Amino acid sequence: MLENGLNFGRGEMRSDVRAQKSVPSERDDQIVSKLTHYKKGGAVAMVDVTAKSVTDRIAVARGFVRVSRAALRAIRRMETPKGDPLEVARIAGIAAAKRTAEWIPLCHPLPLTHVDVTARLCKNGVEITSRVTATARTGVEMEALVAVGAAALTVYDMLKALDKGMTISDIQLVEKRGGAGGDYMRPGRARRR
Amino acid sequence: MLENGLNFGRGEMRSDVRAQKSVPSERDDQIVSKLTHYKKGGAVAMVDVTAKSVTDRIAVARGFVRVSRAALRAIRRMETPKGDPLEVARIAGIAAAKRTAEWIPLCHPLPLTHVDVTARLCKNGVEITSRVTATARTGVEMEALVAVGAAALTVYDMLKALDKGMTISDIQLVEKRGGAGGDYMRPGRARRR
Amino acid sequence: MLENGLNFGRGEMRSDVRAQKSVPSERDDQIVSKLTHYKKGGAVAMVDVTAKSVTDRIAVARGFVRVSRAALRAIRRMETPKGDPLEVARIAGIAAAKRTAEWIPLCHPLPLTHVDVTARLCKNGVEITSRVTATARTGVEMEALVAVGAAALTVYDMLKALDKGMTISDIQLVEKRGGAGGDYMRPGRARRR
Amino acid sequence: MLENGLNFGRGEMRSDVRAQKSVPSERDDQIVSKLTHYKKGGAVAMVDVTAKSVTDRIAVARGFVRVSRAALRAIRRMETPKGDPLEVARIAGIAAAKRTAEWIPLCHPLPLTHVDVTARLCKNGVEITSRVTATARTGVEMEALVAVGAAALTVYDMLKALDKGMTISDIQLVEKRGGAGGDYMRPGRARRR
Amino acid sequence: MLENGLNFGRGEMRSDVRAQKSVPSERDDQIVSKLTHYKKGGAVAMVDVTAKSVTDRIAVARGFVRVSRAALRAIRRMETPKGDPLEVARIAGIAAAKRTAEWIPLCHPLPLTHVDVTARLCKNGVEITSRVTATARTGVEMEALVAVGAAALTVYDMLKALDKGMTISDIQLVEKRGGAGGDYMRPGRARRR
Amino acid sequence: MLENGLNFGRGEMRSDVRAQKSVPSERDDQIVSKLTHYKKGGAVAMVDVTAKSVTDRIAVARGFVRVSRAALRAIRRMETPKGDPLEVARIAGIAAAKRTAEWIPLCHPLPLTHVDVTARLCKNGVEITSRVTATARTGVEMEALVAVGAAALTVYDMLKALDKGMTISDIQLVEKRGGAGGDYMRPGRARRR
Repeated sequence: MLENGLNFGRGEMRSDVRAQKSVPSERDDQIVSKLTHYKKGGAVAMVDVTAKSVTDRIAVARGFVRVSRAALRAIRRMETPKGDPLEVARIAGIAAAKRTAEWIPLCHPLPLTHVDVTARLCKNGVEITSRVTATARTGVEMEALVAVGAAALTVYDMLKALDKGMTISDIQLVEKRGGAGGDYMRPGRARRR
Repeated sequence: MLENGLNFGRGEMRSDVRAQKSVPSERDDQIVSKLTHYKKGGAVAMVDVTAKSVTDRIAVARGFVRVSRAALRAIRRMETPKGDPLEVARIAGIAAAKRTAEWIPLCHPLPLTHVDVTARLCKNGVEITSRVTATARTGVEMEALVAVGAAALTVYDMLKALDKGMTISDIQLVEKRGGAGGDYMRPGRARRR
Repeated sequence: MLENGLNFGRGEMRSDVRAQKSVPSERDDQIVSKLTHYKKGGAVAMVDVTAKSVTDRIAVARGFVRVSRAALRAIRRMETPKGDPLEVARIAGIAAAKRTAEWIPLCHPLPLTHVDVTARLCKNGVEITSRVTATARTGVEMEALVAVGAAALTVYDMLKALDKGMTISDIQLVEKRGGAGGDYMRPGRARRR
Repeated sequence: MLENGLNFGRGEMRSDVRAQKSVPSERDDQIVSKLTHYKKGGAVAMVDVTAKSVTDRIAVARGFVRVSRAALRAIRRMETPKGDPLEVARIAGIAAAKRTAEWIPLCHPLPLTHVDVTARLCKNGVEITSRVTATARTGVEMEALVAVGAAALTVYDMLKALDKGMTISDIQLVEKRGGAGGDYMRPGRARRR
Repeated sequence: MLENGLNFGRGEMRSDVRAQKSVPSERDDQIVSKLTHYKKGGAVAMVDVTAKSVTDRIAVARGFVRVSRAALRAIRRMETPKGDPLEVARIAGIAAAKRTAEWIPLCHPLPLTHVDVTARLCKNGVEITSRVTATARTGVEMEALVAVGAAALTVYDMLKALDKGMTISDIQLVEKRGGAGGDYMRPGRARRR
Repeated sequence: MLENGLNFGRGEMRSDVRAQKSVPSERDDQIVSKLTHYKKGGAVAMVDVTAKSVTDRIAVARGFVRVSRAALRAIRRMETPKGDPLEVARIAGIAAAKRTAEWIPLCHPLPLTHVDVTARLCKNGVEITSRVTATARTGVEMEALVAVGAAALTVYDMLKALDKGMTISDIQLVEKRGGAGGDYMRPGRARRR
């Protein structure tokens, strides 16, 4: 399933894609109008949140770094009091979340009140989760996703001498609360691994 | 509830993991000795590249953002001269690669000579690739992976009003060349795109 | 030769300037007392805004990049769906505005609620405008000016292969609203554009 | 003259501009091909400088901040041992030049060997010049222009309590040396002020 | 030799330290429970300040750079209208305080309302003080200490051509006010120098 | 009261300091001429290192955070596999060293080849050392000192819930090698503690 997604070539033609454009349904129009990052005329834009109310915002995200068996064995053996690679990854995730507006061009700078990142060895790799809160005019889902992304990339950096074939995957928003836009809870069961 | 959502492993116990540690094979020792990010005694460390020679370094990475059909239709319809969301993502990826040493704690700051990021709509989402070069004492694989990560996160940001369920996956090193450590080419099929 | 090129004043002597200092009018004293970036004794200082009230702040700024006719023709021809140089400039302006407190030593860090940058080709070059808002204890005029400055410099970078003689000019505050200091509207004609 | 430049609207229609596009001369094609910041197909790109040779690069830039007479008088009176606003501007310019690759999306990060910024009070305002050097694979003109831009914006910030009507203008590349692309010397005489 | 130079403790063995651990008093438990930067289980964590109330926060810190007599004489002689090294240090301290959350991994990003840094030549060196304020959910003691640290390091940089033996010392929190945790006032008399 | 706390010199008057200036010895002139961070006329300046040769540069620095007995006992008890506060400090030191040119206004950006930071609990506190290397045109002493400073400030942040009275002291350059300026080795014995 995932593997299928991976194989994203398939000789799919861009012109085909465009051909599909000619039959927009009415529902599409509604969708396009929701594109908050665009101005009339199509130019990219930051969302104006001036009129939104300041409320508590929470977002939870997760991701996974798939690691080879041999590398996982090595990581488990080196868990000494100092130098846990997952701790470095967690710190990198926290630090990156605080600077989300520098990574992501149209994000608002937000004074975060909390960033929590966990990184846990499991059977096939490292599972990363983040939880970010702020009392702000806009949500913190990008901060949560950036925390996971930076932590996952740092896991790769820490372990790449063992396994250059690691894959970062399943970076997803799990939950989002606060704000007028309504809460979001990722549907369905947790992904098996 | 949330706890449940986060619990996406298989109830694997950390103590089990540790139990496995007690039978290290000889090969494991060799693996541990390759952990370049660690000092004797187990403390995390930057790799000392002072004695390495300055050579041309190239790294190629890729990743994928899975997007819902409805959101993809909307994106295709809005491809106006201004405001292509994939352009914003590409620029974000280039900008992030240049600052890799800020996001990844133990990376060396490198004077990159080129960063190329592509972002392409395909059937199930957006395919991102990066290619980074430097004439340096160490490789640029982290720069290539950071470019892909930042571009993918930016795609999420640009489109999240349409689809909060997007998944970033398959961030991988495709190829790495230059340096004494030998080249790396991701095994498996050649990329057909 | 170079020295000559730099000497673009009128040979005005610094000592002359000082000579003029000896006849301050009473009005000058009032002016000096308004220098908010100075402490008693003359040391440079950040303004203390702790006691100011949090209100909606808006600032509008503009600037211009004069471009040669030949280069303008080239730019107009290359307006393809991807790669509009003015889009890159707009994104650079937004990103810079968010980090104003890093570029301008005595600016306060502010959680901006909106940054809008426009860049428009016109007869003699590229016209840039910005509009920044925040709900804050101090104004956002520097953020608006920084957005214009960064966007203008990026226009230069994008087009410098065509015309190294471009001139960035007329970076000005157009309007400023909110706060106890009173509103500011640039005198003279309304902008006709 | 400058005022004229300021009046950059003139009701020029964008559609008119596009109409002009339909008659490109042969020379235009050559110009477009020089657009180093674009890939085939029109996507924005960083220039690949890997194959360029490392040589000494120098760039000189300048700019001007026009200040009202009343504000200039005040500035002259406050030149105490501490707190010269022009010193703050000079330091801001140096600091910004070192981080040019963060302001300007497609600039290469370069290990600068020198940044010199001057800021001089003259009859109508503050004249700023910069001179940047690096031993690198690409030129440092953007670094020189960024230094001037940041210094000019900082002058505005330091003095805005006195005069919100200040105008930043005439930011120009004066000279550029080093590299295969040939030297550049701004033609004509220095602008009178 | 170098090893020796670094060994500036008293040959105290780490194993000794651990031996001391085996007799914790009840009071120690209370102390450990106050370690706000740790989660249950011992992982490092940012403090969650979401539920704290927004109040005015003030912190004052200080530090000292001990400078040789010869270097101090030189510094005093060069106090010209431009170029006071202490001004550069003050600006560096202000700039660093604003970016404390980038230096210190688990600090919250805070919208500071004021940063004041003083640097004063005295008999044996340079005395640095800072005072930082914010209206925020958490204190600004780290911001005040970072301001002092960056200013002190900049003093070193400005004067290192005269005296490489300078020592930065006595960086301390002097006072902290605001917030539920109670105020702090450094006990005892000011240190003599 | 606070004023008193800050007044930690000996009431030494600035005017006294200036009085001393009137008897410069010939040796002072030589000293002033060594002030590499100043231009003729007294303006602050970056050092031009363009003509210096690229050589291996090494610098070693150290510092100390004095911690109360009670807090030290708590730290020793919490040394669990995760969450060693000294590891967070070490990572903060490495990260800061890489960005030295951002904290210290006139430092050159340097592509460091190695940063090593140690943090060790000893009888009265935490001893921090750093060792930085680069192959560059200028020395890396500021990078080594910045690493120590940031690590020490992070130790303070991690432990401040236990002891707000900690003092950071004895930040010193221990050794410096490489470059035409000659090597530096801190004279005398290591400081006792």
